[in-house]
Amino acid sequence: MKDIRSLQLLLPPRPVLERKLLSFIEEDIPSFDIGAAVVGNQTASAALYFKSGNRSNKDSVILAGVPFFDILFNALGCEIQWSVEEGQDLMQIVNSDKKIKIASVTGPACKILQGERTCLNLLSRVSAVASWSAKLDCLKQKHNYKGEIAGTRKTTPGLRLFEKYALLLGGCSTHRYDLSQVVMLKDNHIDACNGSIEAAVTKAKEFGGFSTMIEVECRSLDDARRAASSGAHIVMLDNFNAEGAKSAAKTLHEEHPNVIVEVSGGLTFDTIADYFDDNVNVLSMGFLTEIGCYFAGGTVDFSLKIV
Amino acid sequence: MKDIRSLQLLLPPRPVLERKLLSFIEEDIPSFDIGAAVVGNQTASAALYFKSGNRSNKDSVILAGVPFFDILFNALGCEIQWSVEEGQDLMQIVNSDKKIKIASVTGPACKILQGERTCLNLLSRVSAVASWSAKLDCLKQKHNYKGEIAGTRKTTPGLRLFEKYALLLGGCSTHRYDLSQVVMLKDNHIDACNGSIEAAVTKAKEFGGFSTMIEVECRSLDDARRAASSGAHIVMLDNFNAEGAKSAAKTLHEEHPNVIVEVSGGLTFDTIADYFDDNVNVLSMGFLTEIGCYFAGGTVDFSLKIV
Amino acid sequence: MKDIRSLQLLLPPRPVLERKLLSFIEEDIPSFDIGAAVVGNQTASAALYFKSGNRSNKDSVILAGVPFFDILFNALGCEIQWSVEEGQDLMQIVNSDKKIKIASVTGPACKILQGERTCLNLLSRVSAVASWSAKLDCLKQKHNYKGEIAGTRKTTPGLRLFEKYALLLGGCSTHRYDLSQVVMLKDNHIDACNGSIEAAVTKAKEFGGFSTMIEVECRSLDDARRAASSGAHIVMLDNFNAEGAKSAAKTLHEEHPNVIVEVSGGLTFDTIADYFDDNVNVLSMGFLTEIGCYFAGGTVDFSLKIV
Amino acid sequence: MKDIRSLQLLLPPRPVLERKLLSFIEEDIPSFDIGAAVVGNQTASAALYFKSGNRSNKDSVILAGVPFFDILFNALGCEIQWSVEEGQDLMQIVNSDKKIKIASVTGPACKILQGERTCLNLLSRVSAVASWSAKLDCLKQKHNYKGEIAGTRKTTPGLRLFEKYALLLGGCSTHRYDLSQVVMLKDNHIDACNGSIEAAVTKAKEFGGFSTMIEVECRSLDDARRAASSGAHIVMLDNFNAEGAKSAAKTLHEEHPNVIVEVSGGLTFDTIADYFDDNVNVLSMGFLTEIGCYFAGGTVDFSLKIV
Amino acid sequence: MKDIRSLQLLLPPRPVLERKLLSFIEEDIPSFDIGAAVVGNQTASAALYFKSGNRSNKDSVILAGVPFFDILFNALGCEIQWSVEEGQDLMQIVNSDKKIKIASVTGPACKILQGERTCLNLLSRVSAVASWSAKLDCLKQKHNYKGEIAGTRKTTPGLRLFEKYALLLGGCSTHRYDLSQVVMLKDNHIDACNGSIEAAVTKAKEFGGFSTMIEVECRSLDDARRAASSGAHIVMLDNFNAEGAKSAAKTLHEEHPNVIVEVSGGLTFDTIADYFDDNVNVLSMGFLTEIGCYFAGGTVDFSLKIV
Amino acid sequence: MKDIRSLQLLLPPRPVLERKLLSFIEEDIPSFDIGAAVVGNQTASAALYFKSGNRSNKDSVILAGVPFFDILFNALGCEIQWSVEEGQDLMQIVNSDKKIKIASVTGPACKILQGERTCLNLLSRVSAVASWSAKLDCLKQKHNYKGEIAGTRKTTPGLRLFEKYALLLGGCSTHRYDLSQVVMLKDNHIDACNGSIEAAVTKAKEFGGFSTMIEVECRSLDDARRAASSGAHIVMLDNFNAEGAKSAAKTLHEEHPNVIVEVSGGLTFDTIADYFDDNVNVLSMGFLTEIGCYFAGGTVDFSLKIV
Repeated sequence: MKDIRSLQLLLPPRPVLERKLLSFIEEDIPSFDIGAAVVGNQTASAALYFKSGNRSNKDSVILAGVPFFDILFNALGCEIQWSVEEGQDLMQIVNSDKKIKIASVTGPACKILQGERTCLNLLSRVSAVASWSAKLDCLKQKHNYKGEIAGTRKTTPGLRLFEKYALLLGGCSTHRYDLSQVVMLKDNHIDACNGSIEAAVTKAKEFGGFSTMIEVECRSLDDARRAASSGAHIVMLDNFNAEGAKSAAKTLHEEHPNVIVEVSGGLTFDTIADYFDDNVNVLSMGFLTEIGCYFAGGTVDFSLKIV
Repeated sequence: MKDIRSLQLLLPPRPVLERKLLSFIEEDIPSFDIGAAVVGNQTASAALYFKSGNRSNKDSVILAGVPFFDILFNALGCEIQWSVEEGQDLMQIVNSDKKIKIASVTGPACKILQGERTCLNLLSRVSAVASWSAKLDCLKQKHNYKGEIAGTRKTTPGLRLFEKYALLLGGCSTHRYDLSQVVMLKDNHIDACNGSIEAAVTKAKEFGGFSTMIEVECRSLDDARRAASSGAHIVMLDNFNAEGAKSAAKTLHEEHPNVIVEVSGGLTFDTIADYFDDNVNVLSMGFLTEIGCYFAGGTVDFSLKIV
Repeated sequence: MKDIRSLQLLLPPRPVLERKLLSFIEEDIPSFDIGAAVVGNQTASAALYFKSGNRSNKDSVILAGVPFFDILFNALGCEIQWSVEEGQDLMQIVNSDKKIKIASVTGPACKILQGERTCLNLLSRVSAVASWSAKLDCLKQKHNYKGEIAGTRKTTPGLRLFEKYALLLGGCSTHRYDLSQVVMLKDNHIDACNGSIEAAVTKAKEFGGFSTMIEVECRSLDDARRAASSGAHIVMLDNFNAEGAKSAAKTLHEEHPNVIVEVSGGLTFDTIADYFDDNVNVLSMGFLTEIGCYFAGGTVDFSLKIV
Repeated sequence: MKDIRSLQLLLPPRPVLERKLLSFIEEDIPSFDIGAAVVGNQTASAALYFKSGNRSNKDSVILAGVPFFDILFNALGCEIQWSVEEGQDLMQIVNSDKKIKIASVTGPACKILQGERTCLNLLSRVSAVASWSAKLDCLKQKHNYKGEIAGTRKTTPGLRLFEKYALLLGGCSTHRYDLSQVVMLKDNHIDACNGSIEAAVTKAKEFGGFSTMIEVECRSLDDARRAASSGAHIVMLDNFNAEGAKSAAKTLHEEHPNVIVEVSGGLTFDTIADYFDDNVNVLSMGFLTEIGCYFAGGTVDFSLKIV
Repeated sequence: MKDIRSLQLLLPPRPVLERKLLSFIEEDIPSFDIGAAVVGNQTASAALYFKSGNRSNKDSVILAGVPFFDILFNALGCEIQWSVEEGQDLMQIVNSDKKIKIASVTGPACKILQGERTCLNLLSRVSAVASWSAKLDCLKQKHNYKGEIAGTRKTTPGLRLFEKYALLLGGCSTHRYDLSQVVMLKDNHIDACNGSIEAAVTKAKEFGGFSTMIEVECRSLDDARRAASSGAHIVMLDNFNAEGAKSAAKTLHEEHPNVIVEVSGGLTFDTIADYFDDNVNVLSMGFLTEIGCYFAGGTVDFSLKIV
Repeated sequence: MKDIRSLQLLLPPRPVLERKLLSFIEEDIPSFDIGAAVVGNQTASAALYFKSGNRSNKDSVILAGVPFFDILFNALGCEIQWSVEEGQDLMQIVNSDKKIKIASVTGPACKILQGERTCLNLLSRVSAVASWSAKLDCLKQKHNYKGEIAGTRKTTPGLRLFEKYALLLGGCSTHRYDLSQVVMLKDNHIDACNGSIEAAVTKAKEFGGFSTMIEVECRSLDDARRAASSGAHIVMLDNFNAEGAKSAAKTLHEEHPNVIVEVSGGLTFDTIADYFDDNVNVLSMGFLTEIGCYFAGGTVDFSLKIV
């Protein structure tokens, strides 16, 4: 498993994150919060609970989003005391009540309530993605698969940072972060180069230079070979079945030992293990970041209660 | 069903939406898009497909997000021709291939590819929420329930506008949009007023005036009566079972015919119909906006192919 | 009178306010402040004075804007010591010099001077609105009127937050904050529904759901009855004279005891008391937020002197 | 009178203004505008009216803000047809109804209503400032005064651009626009230079160079002489009575023919003419931008009616 | 040479660029532009001239920045007619006057003057970087060097987009665009991993996954070998002399044929050719983006004259 | 020499600068910084070095940008200890190694590395401009020239604040900061006023009032006389040779002793001294802010090494 403490350091500097997080608070408080005037600003303490629901504890729920929760509540003048850590499996510690207190938030009552919903909304989403990621990582380890399982760019608009971070936290890879990282050449790019994969890769190298990875989406082994020969760093076998993918990957690696072979398209939790193979370096799934707060039988359920 | 064409008019003015939508493009293209240089800017046309997956056509998939799709692609210099309309059930028109073309995007090839992922990411999420909303609306109609089913503030940070709009499109209600609309008084507010519901409602009215609705979250019929007597517009029965809720709602309306009775907490698709009752005015569920692109057996699957 | 300390809590979180307030400083210092280099940054202390002018002390001048003054000067590295409180009537404490020191600002001399003009500009405007609001509240109390006097959306572009807050501070109501709160149906809306008030209200309820209040602007008792029957929460009698308004309000309440009756249009300080009546729930005046720094015979005059 | 058509050209470029103006719309529509969905987007036409109230037509009401009105409504998809021009005196054309149509706004009904309040709020404020400015300009001309009457930095936070523009439109001067233009040396600056006016002016010149004007606020003729001798471009006689000011100005010009003599402090509409004198080059009044929509007996009253 | 027309397509979408470019205009016009009011808005036409100075025509001056010039002037309502193309060598067409007209700008006179300085400032800087880049590309071709010459992150804050684009235009590579692309491991990273290059590379792979290139800055051949063995994609020989670099590169490629060998540190125009070698894949120089408008004997001199 | 400590106070308030500086960090870290996760956040200390290169110590390298360096590193949680001061000549203290440590940065290792490049990029550019400015100031003093040498608006887009500050720090003047300060009338303005310099100056005074300086760009002594007679504050002799300029300046001052005479166009370090003359008040050079990090034989070279 990754070093979670270090992992958090790859996030943008705190003032940059704070500004983004405050924009979420502004979405929730465009003008007045009359409830705040009713509740007052006396110091209060709130317990952050995780409820497991009917989820089995085989389905690890990974706590993810602690840095965001902290930064946002700090900006509102509240302090947090965690009894668990970012990346921890909450199902391992939940008690027979299916509920466990995982942190205390202390600060003005009205500020706790102002931050509550936004912080929970985010925590739940980030944790759900991290949990799916961890579930796949676990499957990988069970099968002793050495390749990477990765997300895609199918992230929630505005939340890519949070969701890609959650992928890493759970043990999967981000895949390319955005259009400015790794050039992905598809049919359209090849067509624009008169159908020549080689021409498309050459053009991409010309613009991207040595520091840009090039990936080619391929529909056949033949295309994949052409891509690898042309100097693509990554060859993506698109919508191959498991046997086809493994066999193609083997052939590719025999001819191009350094090429990274990715398989994508139509992978599910049920079918992905069929693709585990030493020659398949990467398996990518959009699903991981398309699922909101949902994980294994229900939404990841956090709540905050002033005590 | 709502007048969908009119409904779209409640969205903020186009330049305001455009700015928000472009921020999603900036998230995906922080610097260069080398692929764009490879593919070129010759005029191309792309087909927008919906794939039904293995979903049964009893599960209406509501197309939602057309205005956002249009504004964003227009900003990139592309034009859209739709063959379906916002709010339409795509499962009714999907063919035996489980796939149907629903729009054409025409513009510079590189611009179609730049907008593709962000537009699909948004369309899929907005449609999923609208579909859940429609599913509930359908259940309501089947049972001839006259009350409202509503979302909550458990929306995706940064996407509330899109998700609340989707709720409306599907037939559910938004519930209060943000902390600046409708004051919700919970335990903490009552406690801050020395445990007096009446004092808390009075204080909320004092600050909010005649134009602010007041809702009180109640754990017992007794509290609910006190809230209604104090002048709360909405009384929310928190975590009541179906029988308890209906019986309490009846009592409340006998005593306070104008109060709006909401039931919230722990409602699911399976249990919600048990709560349908003339005295239960509102049933609210956070789930509706917590689920990303997922709807009824899979993510709502749109794709764009340059032809 | 309202609980002023609580009232301040309904303002947006401090970092959000700070950003808005700093934008005013940027308006005043787009590039260099050469005067700051001349005056230096040695610690200085400045007295904030209020001057009453020739105003009679019957015209309460309500200090309003302390939270903004504090946040902005704090952001510039200065500390404030107030000898009066937000919401206090300054005319009660002004001495025979018609001048009184109400606070000390301590910090780098150049920073005091940089914040001076912007802070005073804001303090004066917010206090003027609060003072008008208090003057009406006082009139209300003198006449033992139980209804609400409210502002409108005729606020200064960019300053609505400050002016609506000032209304509350003085004792009046904000009325709906913006177009996203309370639907106001006017002639145009009715016309668009083929002249049917009922159709317009129904449509508004359809889109707004249970959590949105609906108000109908009415030109006749007949229209008002129709609006109330249709389920409008608030009926606004537009440009009625006092007798007409009171009589219509009585009729409306006999038939619809829960409807809120508002009278608006052409109300002035001289005529408003004629409308005070148990059946008139709300009287609204745009004037309250249209008047800049002016209150009762002159601008509200604050000044800052380094001592 | 100034060339009004040219004058409008000094405003920032249209896209910059548009962004600022749209922020005002966002203040008024933070999320949904349900009324827009009710009213629909069929093309409508609205008349913009000016009502004179009981104002005498000796009090010229100057139409000001046409460029902002146009840009904002254009951004909402509406077109404007004016029958009067920016800078025109509306009292000269108002009819016996005390009301006159001055423009038509054509566009989608819902967009007209969305822009209405914000555009009127701004038009009224800008016109009020321009009207006060014109009133003073008129007084100046009546007395054949050749100096300038100027505003100050006592503008509404966030609206300086609009108010300074209105000053120019009416015939007065802006005075320095912000802290980055013209260095104003006050007591504190002099004190920081050990009480030496000469030292303060020298330091200001050192930092500001040849392209920065320097003004010194003076409490006595003696100080004023010292300032002029030190090379200040502008000497401001602070709180001098009319005779004292004129006499001091005469002395100063005898000794320093090129110095600009400004008088400021306590000037009112009633007293300002006493200061008109060939040696008094500038008279400045904060009042001009402190008065919201109010001008000569009432707010400047514009309204928009869909026809 | 690169396909310049395609190259421009890698820039962010037009509305994103426009917003950035307008911020430069706002820097230059924070409030009023009085000159605009003097000059008026009658349609005018201006000639854009390039002056060669005393530069020899061996020093190709590459025109770069046409897309920015166009977008910004378009936003101001002006149209541009170019007689040359982005990427062209202006020295080849300059006449005996050492001056040549390269474009016409048509639009309102005041708008031409408002855009003039900002557009020229940018055009000159972008062209200078492109010219240095082309000069190196030319040297490369002369020596038939097949490797890449690249810039660094030593760009002007806020202008990286423009400068990296210019590098590409001239024929050099961008090198990694920012900290989010390509992980560069230096001494500090190695030290943090207890001095183990292997541990550092492994950790970087763990966090970055298959889609992130890893580069290691090396001070010795030994370190470089260790880096290559650990799986670094790029090995950077830091401050090696030419012979040392070429010999190390040879050894490295013998052992690790796929590793990219970069040499950096202390390279100048005079010395860089000494490093040209088949085994040296990349030579990087910070100088290329550190030089403002200066190129080969003087600033790149554009001017605009209204005709 | 200017009082450097005071000079820094003319910069905008810290939170305003901080926001601008953080935008540069966001340019460099759009998403993740994987290197940060590798290096960790243990407290580290880095030495900031200046390297003189082969520059002779006659070429003073002025340290400039300390306030920016401090604010940005502080925002990242690092502290700075300087052993030199803003404005100091680093060549005077550099040792025989041509290298000197000038500050320590202490903070989390990953934060030091995140701020490093951006802070150095800025420090180098600001110092280069300050050094050129100081070089000219030195020349001025050597020749005992009493006039001012000034920059122009030929600054780097987005960096004007930094570059104009650097000009002041080195001893030169900023000249007008932007289009909103000082009206500059050129041919086009004169032409728009039917060729009448007097008409143009009058119009500029009309719009700009007493607080706006007016400068006229003149191609002949005749024009210059006309400008001075019309009341222009500054007369700019455009592209005059040294003798012509000095003679024209003499004539102008004989006739208009208060007019400021500026000479601009084609001045270089080699020729500027020829223009030094009591009647030439200002000499302006665009070059000063067009040169990036370059100064006297090389870029101004700062580096940061974690120790």
